[in-house]
Order: sequence, then C-alpha cells, then structure tokens
Amino acid sequence: MLLNIFQKELYQGIQIVQRAVSAKSTLPILTGIYLEAKKERGLHLIATDLEIGIEYWVKADIKEEGAIVLPADQLTGIIRELPAADIHFEVDPEHYRLYLKCLNSEFNIKGYQPDEFPQLPEVDQAQRLSVPADIFKEMVDEVKFSTSTDQTQPSLTGGLMAISREDIRLVTTNTYRLAYSRHKLENDLERDILAILPGGTLNELSNLIVAQGEIEIIINDNYVRFNINDIVLISRLIEGNFPNYQQVIPKEYNTRLKVDRDELLKAVKRTSLIARLDSNVISLSVKTDEMNITTVDSDSGDAHESLEIELEGAEQKINIDAGYLLDVLKVLKDDVVIMEMIGPLNPLTIKKSENDNYIYLIMPVRPGS
Amino acid sequence: MLLNIFQKELYQGIQIVQRAVSAKSTLPILTGIYLEAKKERGLHLIATDLEIGIEYWVKADIKEEGAIVLPADQLTGIIRELPAADIHFEVDPEHYRLYLKCLNSEFNIKGYQPDEFPQLPEVDQAQRLSVPADIFKEMVDEVKFSTSTDQTQPSLTGGLMAISREDIRLVTTNTYRLAYSRHKLENDLERDILAILPGGTLNELSNLIVAQGEIEIIINDNYVRFNINDIVLISRLIEGNFPNYQQVIPKEYNTRLKVDRDELLKAVKRTSLIARLDSNVISLSVKTDEMNITTVDSDSGDAHESLEIELEGAEQKINIDAGYLLDVLKVLKDDVVIMEMIGPLNPLTIKKSENDNYIYLIMPVRPGS
Repeated sequence: MLLNIFQKELYQGIQIVQRAVSAKSTLPILTGIYLEAKKERGLHLIATDLEIGIEYWVKADIKEEGAIVLPADQLTGIIRELPAADIHFEVDPEHYRLYLKCLNSEFNIKGYQPDEFPQLPEVDQAQRLSVPADIFKEMVDEVKFSTSTDQTQPSLTGGLMAISREDIRLVTTNTYRLAYSRHKLENDLERDILAILPGGTLNELSNLIVAQGEIEIIINDNYVRFNINDIVLISRLIEGNFPNYQQVIPKEYNTRLKVDRDELLKAVKRTSLIARLDSNVISLSVKTDEMNITTVDSDSGDAHESLEIELEGAEQKINIDAGYLLDVLKVLKDDVVIMEMIGPLNPLTIKKSENDNYIYLIMPVRPGS
Repeated sequence: MLLNIFQKELYQGIQIVQRAVSAKSTLPILTGIYLEAKKERGLHLIATDLEIGIEYWVKADIKEEGAIVLPADQLTGIIRELPAADIHFEVDPEHYRLYLKCLNSEFNIKGYQPDEFPQLPEVDQAQRLSVPADIFKEMVDEVKFSTSTDQTQPSLTGGLMAISREDIRLVTTNTYRLAYSRHKLENDLERDILAILPGGTLNELSNLIVAQGEIEIIINDNYVRFNINDIVLISRLIEGNFPNYQQVIPKEYNTRLKVDRDELLKAVKRTSLIARLDSNVISLSVKTDEMNITTVDSDSGDAHESLEIELEGAEQKINIDAGYLLDVLKVLKDDVVIMEMIGPLNPLTIKKSENDNYIYLIMPVRPGS
C-alpha cells in the first residue's frame, strides 16, 4: 500500500468516520479505522462499533493498492497536527506498520491486520427511497433528545421510523414524554416501513447530515443504510415493538394558547434553577392573557415567573418536569409555540405551528405525587 | 437590607468573587457569597475558601443597609439568567431569606447568617509597593504552570515571590523543572521580601489581572493583599523554605541555539503523540543548522522531526519530558526562543531573549533510566 494524500482531505475523512469508532471495546481492532487504497477511487475509510458503521472515500493518488487498520486516536492526532501538505503514506503489508512522511515529519506506527476488521453488513432485499436532507435533519433533531435510557426496554432507547406511501414519521418516547415529527413524502414503496433506529444512530444522522441535497434510505428487516452525499452510514435496527404512539396523542383539547418561545424558555430556565434543587417539577398555571410558572413544594426557595400569552378556552393548572419542557424549547426554532391542555391529569401538548406535523407530549406530575 | 442594582453589574461582580468560593467545603457557608449593603459605597461582595479571599464593590442604590450570605451556585445561576434590567433585592434579616424581583421574575431563596462568615484577615504591619499590571501578569503566566502537585512538599506547590529594592522575581519548581521570571523594579522597601504564594493564588492573579494600570502589593509575614483596580485578592502565604534556585541555574553553556518557537511547538506536539503512549520522553539532538526530535524506546511506534536552527558551540543530544517543553512553548509569545545546553546530564535551559530575565530549566532524563 503506497499513496500520496493531502493532509486536509485525509483529516476531514477521518473526522467523519471516527464517530463510529468504539471508544472502548472488547475487540481492540474496533478502536481503529480501516483504510483501503483502491486505484480507481482513492482511499476508503471505514469505522464501526458493530451498532453503526460509517464509510467515506477520500481522494488520493494511489501507487499501490492495499489495506490496513490503524489506531484511531493516534491517527487522528498525527494527521491533525501535520502541516497542510502532501502526505506520503506507506504500509508494510507483512508487519502491518504504517510509515508516514509529511515535509520534515516522519511517523512509524503499528496497525492491525485488515482482514480481522469486521465487514459492514450488505443491506440487501431492501426497499429504497429519498428524503430531502434539510427536512430529515430537522425531523431527527426534533425527536432525538426524547429517547429512553432504560436498557431494559430496548425499543424505547431508539426512535421509530415509520414510512408509508404518503409520509415519513419519527417518534421517540421514554413513556413520560413523547416526540413525534411527520413530513409528507409521496413515494412508491411496495410496503410500509416500520423500523426502530438506535438512539446513537439518530445522533450520528444529526451530526453527519448537512442541510443540502437528498438522503437515500435503503432498508431491510435488520439494517438501514443512509447515503448522505459521499458518506455511508449503516446501522442495525432494534428488534421489538414500539408502543402505539397514536393512541397517546390527544385528539382534542380544552385549552389552547400561544406563547413566545424564547420568553418561555428563559422563564422555565430561571424557575428550574430553584426547582432542580428538588424534583425539578414546576407548575404552569394559565388564565386570560397570562401564564404563571412557579416552583412546587421546594424546600430551597421559590421562583415565580409570569408571561403574556394568547389563550383560547378554559383556565388550567398542570405540574410537569421542567427539564422535559426545556428540551423541546431549546430544539424548536419558531418564534411562537402552541400549547394544548385538557386537564391537570392529561398530557400537555406542544406544537410548533397550526398543523399537526410536530407534536410533543409531556405527561403531568400528579399534584402531591 | 433593601436595594436596587443593575443585573449586568451584579453579575460581573459575582463572576469576579465567585472564583474564591469553595466548591465543596466542610463549612457549608463557604459555598456562599457574602453580600453587604453600605449606603456610601454600594454592595460589597466577598468570597473565600480560607486560602484566598476576593472582595469587590458593586454600584447599587442602597435603601437599607444589611448583610447576608447566599449560596453562590443559585445566586450565579439566577442573576445570569435574569434580563438586563434593574433588580429589586430585599433581605428578611430575621430569617436570612432573599426576596428578589426583576421585571416578571420573582425569587425567594434561603441564605446563611452573615456573622458566621469568616472575616478576611487584615494585612497589617505590612510593606507595600506597586508593580505595573501587564508586567506582573506576564511574570505570573510565565511561572504558574511549573509548580509541584506533591502535597508532602508544601513550599513547592506555590511560587516564590522575592522582591528587593532593585527587582521582583517569581520562581516555581517541581524539582524536575524550574521557571524563573525577573523584572527590574526600583522601589524603597525597608527590607527584602521573600514569600511563597499558593499555586491557586498564582492562577487567580492570572485570571483577575487585566493588563492595565498598577497592582498594589501589601504583604506581611503571613498574608498578602493585591489591590487590582477595584478587586481585592487576599491570600495566605505558604510557610517554609523555598529551595535555593540560584544554585541550580547554570552559569555557562557549551551549546546555544535559536529556534522558531511555533515550529518547535508543533514538532514537539507531534512527537509527543507517539511518545506519550509510553513515558513521554523525547530526544533532542542538535548539530549545525538542524535539530532532530525523536521518540525514545517507544513500543508503539516512532516519530521523527527535523527543524532548522542557528547553532553556536558543540553538538548535543539530550532526553527530556516532552510535556515540560510543551508547557513553556505554549506560554511564551516570542517568535524565537533560545536554548542552552552543557551536556546530556545537565539541565536544558530555555530563554525568551538575549537577557536573563526569563529562565526555564528542564532536568534531563538519563538515557536508559
């Protein structure tokens, strides 16, 4: 394996695939990046932690084909610190060692045998469709923070991706709150898709997608492959059933209000400074023109905020976890958000506009519970 | 206690004194900030961890004098999140509770009894002198990173401040390296000052000093007080003797060279990426026009860098800890640094210019040790 490659391009490629490298692994080779030189395409970079895998091709002048696995930490550190110049990259195929030279810097590092690196799965017998990148990224960002961390319910640690011939939906829930994002997407799928993406995959999608062009989704029963421009992200799917989210989403409301998102975010943040010293529960009380936010039964002190709102319907009072409300207010970008309530024991619904394409539910905390 | 104060000014004051607040303390009151309202001066803020104390006055419209100690975490969080507006600040002196109102936000938090807060020591029977702020800050920055973390030798965990009628010197060492910074400063002290400042005090001086005006130093046998514009920093001094640093500084050299600081910094950083996987020892080898930097006996790989230098005197080879060299190269600002060597078993000396006002020594690692 012998090639010349430009430092900036190699570093960019390493940063992309590095996100899939295992931090600690019982398989030491997974802490490495697989590099393969192909005359017709350049240098192929692959990393995987067995849940997700990321592939990327970097332009390079390949003199001799070959492959090696190199420790990701060392490789990243070295390439980052090298000057912006051509790197001479040479692998001794018998001893799996890299020799690298860039201007006045030379390195010699130990690698791993490339054929011991696990192959990323082929996603065959698959359905495929395309989604606009900006829309898919926004949907992912609107739901990814709302997964469960409870490993005893694996399906809740991921997000449901439901695709029909008319639309695509992403849903996450930890049973105390739920995030739902939908986008109309006409397509010619043969059958509906119902898949659970791991939470880590949602995070990597959010990191890797730049809001340009189209994303191709290729999916079968066990795996999904996302083609994001030149980046390939392959993820296993979580087995199991996702809860019936439709049944939880309220069909009606008694109270509906509009409130300035940024004002509400700041007020909840301040109230939470006191509330989080105990259970982080706050009380929202709404009447004509005004929302009052207060701490609930806090030993450490009290906070009280009042905000202007536009109200339709009955007065309400509901106790909720301040953190759940902060999460969604930080993610949405709209100037105004809509809240809907039925009563103190029903979920609080947050929407970002008049339509139902985004719905976020927070289950109430029972007074005195 | 009753006052009005502007959010921005109070927040700025809190940020200044907060640096002296104990993160965790056996004395809970030390996790708080002492606030005292005085009609003629405004609001006085004080924090201390019993090693250092910081005081600052904030302009305020005092309606009623009084004092309270408030938990620093909560106070900082609340004041930071409040809008840039006037804060109404009211203390119930019987129950040590603060009631605060700012536009539509209201808070009620529990404080501590102010007379339980430890008083900062008076620095009496003291000598005093002034130093230009920019010079003193540079001196502190040039030595503060080189203290010892070994608590069994308390005097090495601090920095020596030696002031005579002609100059001021700061010195730190962990016995494997030493940093010395001197500045000519004519003054009329009655007797020389020899004091050991805690490492934390050096760090806070560096943080608090803005490079403007003069710093006043007021010092006796046990305490030192720095007046930094409107900020007062009071620190205890470390008892004990500081090693005789003059005896360690080489009086001569066999080799002297000039090298580009930034090029050297980058080359040492890269070599250290491999060296740090083992002992972080690197070898510097200098001959006419060239310095070669290599890893030493590393199992994980090799690195080799070469750099242009201007050499005077004999060829040399010396093994040192890469981290010690990186530390000083990061702090200095000069384009070129000077290195002096005697032999492989003598210290490596780094200077920042032709004169001896700054001297940094790195003890060599014996080959094969």
